[in-house]
Amino acid sequence: MRLACIYVWPIHAVFVGLILTSGVLAETLVEDKEQFYEATEDLKPGDTIVLADGVWRDFEIVLEGNGTEEAPITLTAQNKGKVVISGRSNLRIAGEHLVVSGLVFKDGYTPTNTVVSFRRSKEKLANHSRITEIVIDHFNNPERHETDFWVMMYGKHNRFDHNYLAGKSNKGVTMAVRLDSEASQENHHRIDHNYFGHRPILGSNGGETLRIGTSAYSLSNSFTVVESNYFDRCNGEVEIVSSKSGRNTFKGNLFFESQGTLTLRHGNDNTIENNVFLGNQVAHTGGIRVINKRQRIRNNYLSGLTGHRFGGALVVMNGVPNSPINRYHQVEESTIEQNSVIDSLHVELAAGADAERSAPPITTSFSRNLFFNSEPAAVFAVHDDVSGIEFAENLSNRQPPEELQHGVRLVDFDMSEAANGLLYPVDDHLRKVGADVSLQVLSREETGPTWYPKPVLGASFEPPLEAGNVLVSDPSPENEATWDPKPSFYPGFDAGNVVHLNPGNNSLTRALARAEKVGTFVLNDGDYVESSTLVIDRPVTIRASEGSAPHISFERSALFELKDGGNLKLEGLTISGSLAPDMAGNSLIRTSRHSMLNNYSLVIVSSTIQDLDVNHSFNVFSLSKHTFADLVVIADSRFENITGHVLQMDQENDDLGIYNVEYASVTNSSFQNVDGSVLSIYRGGTDESTFGPHVLVHGNQIDSVGLGKRNKSNGSVWLHGVQVTRIHDNLFEASAPIRVVETVGEPSTVVVDNAFTDTREPIIEPFER
Amino acid sequence: MRLACIYVWPIHAVFVGLILTSGVLAETLVEDKEQFYEATEDLKPGDTIVLADGVWRDFEIVLEGNGTEEAPITLTAQNKGKVVISGRSNLRIAGEHLVVSGLVFKDGYTPTNTVVSFRRSKEKLANHSRITEIVIDHFNNPERHETDFWVMMYGKHNRFDHNYLAGKSNKGVTMAVRLDSEASQENHHRIDHNYFGHRPILGSNGGETLRIGTSAYSLSNSFTVVESNYFDRCNGEVEIVSSKSGRNTFKGNLFFESQGTLTLRHGNDNTIENNVFLGNQVAHTGGIRVINKRQRIRNNYLSGLTGHRFGGALVVMNGVPNSPINRYHQVEESTIEQNSVIDSLHVELAAGADAERSAPPITTSFSRNLFFNSEPAAVFAVHDDVSGIEFAENLSNRQPPEELQHGVRLVDFDMSEAANGLLYPVDDHLRKVGADVSLQVLSREETGPTWYPKPVLGASFEPPLEAGNVLVSDPSPENEATWDPKPSFYPGFDAGNVVHLNPGNNSLTRALARAEKVGTFVLNDGDYVESSTLVIDRPVTIRASEGSAPHISFERSALFELKDGGNLKLEGLTISGSLAPDMAGNSLIRTSRHSMLNNYSLVIVSSTIQDLDVNHSFNVFSLSKHTFADLVVIADSRFENITGHVLQMDQENDDLGIYNVEYASVTNSSFQNVDGSVLSIYRGGTDESTFGPHVLVHGNQIDSVGLGKRNKSNGSVWLHGVQVTRIHDNLFEASAPIRVVETVGEPSTVVVDNAFTDTREPIIEPFER
Repeated sequence: MRLACIYVWPIHAVFVGLILTSGVLAETLVEDKEQFYEATEDLKPGDTIVLADGVWRDFEIVLEGNGTEEAPITLTAQNKGKVVISGRSNLRIAGEHLVVSGLVFKDGYTPTNTVVSFRRSKEKLANHSRITEIVIDHFNNPERHETDFWVMMYGKHNRFDHNYLAGKSNKGVTMAVRLDSEASQENHHRIDHNYFGHRPILGSNGGETLRIGTSAYSLSNSFTVVESNYFDRCNGEVEIVSSKSGRNTFKGNLFFESQGTLTLRHGNDNTIENNVFLGNQVAHTGGIRVINKRQRIRNNYLSGLTGHRFGGALVVMNGVPNSPINRYHQVEESTIEQNSVIDSLHVELAAGADAERSAPPITTSFSRNLFFNSEPAAVFAVHDDVSGIEFAENLSNRQPPEELQHGVRLVDFDMSEAANGLLYPVDDHLRKVGADVSLQVLSREETGPTWYPKPVLGASFEPPLEAGNVLVSDPSPENEATWDPKPSFYPGFDAGNVVHLNPGNNSLTRALARAEKVGTFVLNDGDYVESSTLVIDRPVTIRASEGSAPHISFERSALFELKDGGNLKLEGLTISGSLAPDMAGNSLIRTSRHSMLNNYSLVIVSSTIQDLDVNHSFNVFSLSKHTFADLVVIADSRFENITGHVLQMDQENDDLGIYNVEYASVTNSSFQNVDGSVLSIYRGGTDESTFGPHVLVHGNQIDSVGLGKRNKSNGSVWLHGVQVTRIHDNLFEASAPIRVVETVGEPSTVVVDNAFTDTREPIIEPFER
Repeated sequence: MRLACIYVWPIHAVFVGLILTSGVLAETLVEDKEQFYEATEDLKPGDTIVLADGVWRDFEIVLEGNGTEEAPITLTAQNKGKVVISGRSNLRIAGEHLVVSGLVFKDGYTPTNTVVSFRRSKEKLANHSRITEIVIDHFNNPERHETDFWVMMYGKHNRFDHNYLAGKSNKGVTMAVRLDSEASQENHHRIDHNYFGHRPILGSNGGETLRIGTSAYSLSNSFTVVESNYFDRCNGEVEIVSSKSGRNTFKGNLFFESQGTLTLRHGNDNTIENNVFLGNQVAHTGGIRVINKRQRIRNNYLSGLTGHRFGGALVVMNGVPNSPINRYHQVEESTIEQNSVIDSLHVELAAGADAERSAPPITTSFSRNLFFNSEPAAVFAVHDDVSGIEFAENLSNRQPPEELQHGVRLVDFDMSEAANGLLYPVDDHLRKVGADVSLQVLSREETGPTWYPKPVLGASFEPPLEAGNVLVSDPSPENEATWDPKPSFYPGFDAGNVVHLNPGNNSLTRALARAEKVGTFVLNDGDYVESSTLVIDRPVTIRASEGSAPHISFERSALFELKDGGNLKLEGLTISGSLAPDMAGNSLIRTSRHSMLNNYSLVIVSSTIQDLDVNHSFNVFSLSKHTFADLVVIADSRFENITGHVLQMDQENDDLGIYNVEYASVTNSSFQNVDGSVLSIYRGGTDESTFGPHVLVHGNQIDSVGLGKRNKSNGSVWLHGVQVTRIHDNLFEASAPIRVVETVGEPSTVVVDNAFTDTREPIIEPFER
């Protein structure tokens, strides 16, 4: 029987609220760390530690003890959601039958490699324990590429449920189940009803949302159940969920506009069923990727997914013969049945086939799956011999390739919405193919703690001008017109208040400092001279007033510095570098020189940038290591007399697979007398965990660009490791050549319909050491 | 007549202390910014604004008005030294007859490009004004390579005296006199009795302490007098003072252990007399460098200066025929007379002679100078035809080169100390040569405000082990034994308290967090496992206790992170990377990823570093852009199984002449199975304003090093742009070759007496684009 407790509240309490009732249950309210350490020194079954409401800073919580099934040891909040753990803090639990609930981790980060750990040390694990209704919200190490994890599950028979995890933007898997010792294998954990909120693009490996196991232990069984979790725009990298162990079950989950796939990366005998994937045509949204033996994929609903290659709606991989444990095991004895694939662009069979991955799927059945596309589409791509897959009773309303036609029947049919909001064939007798109408669609409200609000969904960003054209999921140029998935980020330009400014010394400096809520500054005609670097830490638009041509000059090494939270759009301005200091290395715009956790966007339209030439290496835009742009756009603008690069985005020089920009678009602009490149982009390393960079260069005049002696790349456009490149309909005159170095993955490079006068032809080459 | 004022002190005063006396003088005590703005709105001759004692944060002070000679407008402190201007603050004065005194700028930096400016804007300058007894102490932009200036003099007839300026460690000249408009030329400024305190090595151009003019206006006369200033270890770059205009006078100044020279870089008709240079044999200390016409150098005392080439005790440059204004004008009609050059290593004549600088000095007299060296030395270097210099009545106690013997007489003589503390020939009749016995030696106490304490002089750092051997000022190998100047920095190791630690989980983490004043941690035998990165923000030594072999492993991406103020010494430890996260790019030690203002030192001795191989690119030491090491030392240590570099010091990739380490020394150690390099150092660009890097690699065994596919340089030792290189008596086996790329200046590279087995010979080549 659970007894009520009465809190004792002395003023300036030192140690309070210890009340023993019936001799066994003890509930202790603690008000500071010392009280907590004292109260948890020797925990007994039934003990409950209650953290007082308030902010607990720099608090490394350890809950260790052995409860029982009937009388667990509990750590909770005085009022759920009112206990905030901030600063350099974390939580470790160890022992038996422990329950933690109600805590909110925010405004800080862990000093160790984990925020919430189901172990105290390598030797002391937690079993039969539960963490429920906790929140970890943007609890990020300030260093973007410092690796840590939010949740690490060890031990056995643990449950992690109804939690809220959103906004992880530094490196490291959001949540991992570890199988690194026998005590953590065959664990039968349950991960359910959690809200995995937005995870922005990381621009590197290490952005998975959930991982179960690692390759080293992947032939062990985990028996982890992942059920009824909501994955909301989990865009960290190519794997949303990475299963690296055996006998896991993924069911009833919802994947909303999440880039990447649920991947059965290592391990056998896993089940993926009754899940719903809603891509809404957002770029790089994917479904399920199958590798290894005896996997069962059934009754899933996959809709509006644009991803291709390893990121497609359904991907069945080729394996490596006698694969080492960390490469690709052949697909065998697997079942892919009764899934619906709706308005999704790519089903990839025998994907990744190459000299190494030469073992196609065998002894696998692929039956009663439904494929429907409202637009014409060539959904299936067959990369190798698929005779080892038995296709039967599948339906498609678009023509499948010839080798599948025996098992994928072309039928013209219509779809209609069922009670669950999903689409099913109008024709009743076709409904035995594809996902069942009884499929439950998880709602956000069913996940996470009820008391913590989930973010309002923003409208996906409408890319300005032609930027959207590059966002092709299928990188063959003939598909450009057909498919145009939208990117998934929210620069928030042109929101907030609007103020009009008159010219003068430091007019912008003063306005930016005073007007914290202003999003748009409209400049009247005249000269603006700025003595300070303008810090942009929110979405800011600066534009000319109707019919005017304001002119800005600046006296510091940069006019604008983007800080965390900042996005910048310049429109209709003329900016000169003539008053900048006589030192090498100035910039018109730069990012913070520190790591930035928030991705940013930069847009320059209908502007003139000139005379960045007081000294050498004066860039229009310079970014620093460990910063990341979702989008950089130049359109309808003019650039003249620049001693550095226009867009210098090449600072991740460590070849770790990290890069600095997801989408870069330069269109309908002119560039004259630029010592550096129009674009300098570098993505080094051999890792395949990311989708970008994507680059569009279209409709520009490029004259006397890239020939400065300090331009290391010797290119007017220099792209190293870009994944999608479209350079077309540009005029190059007396310039350095386009230089493209293609690296890992399947980079798609299209350089067509450009004119070259007194300029070498483009040099496109594979990377070779 | 000056009248006494009475302050009115109401409690919670809003506006106070305005007392009119005799109808003209007004003294206003202001207590906040609003009061200040109100009080300074309409200043009249004789007005005095008094800032109340306390800290004024984020205060951009403007003092504008027209005083008269009899009744100036004054801004001062309630109590001198008790008014602190902090945060983002600065001071601008404009008008006539203004006086500012008593303010202390510290704990902040300027939001514009100047802290104290003798103008409000381009149009509004200050004349006949004085800034006296102010302090600017470490008032540095947190970004090391963001350029700003502490004092900019504009206008005419201004005085800057008895001020204290110390600790500038971001880029930008400490103090500049501008001649950029007619209103600032022929200015007759006086800069006197200032204390220019320690300026650490910047590792880039932009570290001058005082500059008068710029090349563009250098043919204008300045008539600036620089008198009785104390330059205390002003080591920013190669020019301590850069005179770039005409008719300036430098007299009675004292240069104490300052690296670089007083340089007559541009402009004619300047006088340098009665100055004292005391190098105390510190590396790179220099004297006077002469360029241009009608310069007069007389009665200076130059002692203990070790600098060579452009940094010698006396340097007379070659010019460029028909030189553009920003290159080198020929030396003509100049006089160098009656100077004493004592125990100094290098007098360089026709220095810098090359294909471009082909015009040797002409119509110049060099007479009655005294040269004395207590050790044998070849002081004079003659780089071109010096027949245009008339040598007469000079004396030397060491043999001059043949072409000088007609005018430099070899005499054996002794020296003795005179009343002023300087050395003069014992022989009275020789005393008419060299500086006069009446020469006054400026003391620190005569400079700066009396009320602000000057820092205690630390003992120069004793470099550990063999590091000193590389610090040769004359980089010819035969001089190594003879000359061994000491570097000028103060890591402060082995100071503070000592604590002894026992092994265990997070033993070091806890000790470092708790023991703020401890400088030395002595580890008893056993295993130490650290879960957090240890932040080193003060000088810290970690060493094994006598006879023990403690073993450390760590779970984060780095074990140590150096932050501003930190220096680290490891001694007798065994450290393994086996528990580090399975991600690429870990480090045993790294710098802050942010800019660091303080130079640091890192020393690893008698230690074993092993198994940094959980993933690729695992470095022993990684530094970030915009950080700077005075000294990095490895000695008597062992390194095994490392997937990255040992010392990765190559992050300044922008070719702006910036670099990351002044002295690197690797001696008597073994390296086995290292994928990257033992050292990777990069100094790009063509600038010649700096002395380093210096590198010593001696007595090492290097086995299977540098052959990893990710080692971009393909070298076991990779040095690009290093100025002094000594690699000798090492054994290389099955390793990548030594690769040295020589760039600007006169890099001195000596690679001798190494043995190479199954390893290519060293590749030493000039930089070519």
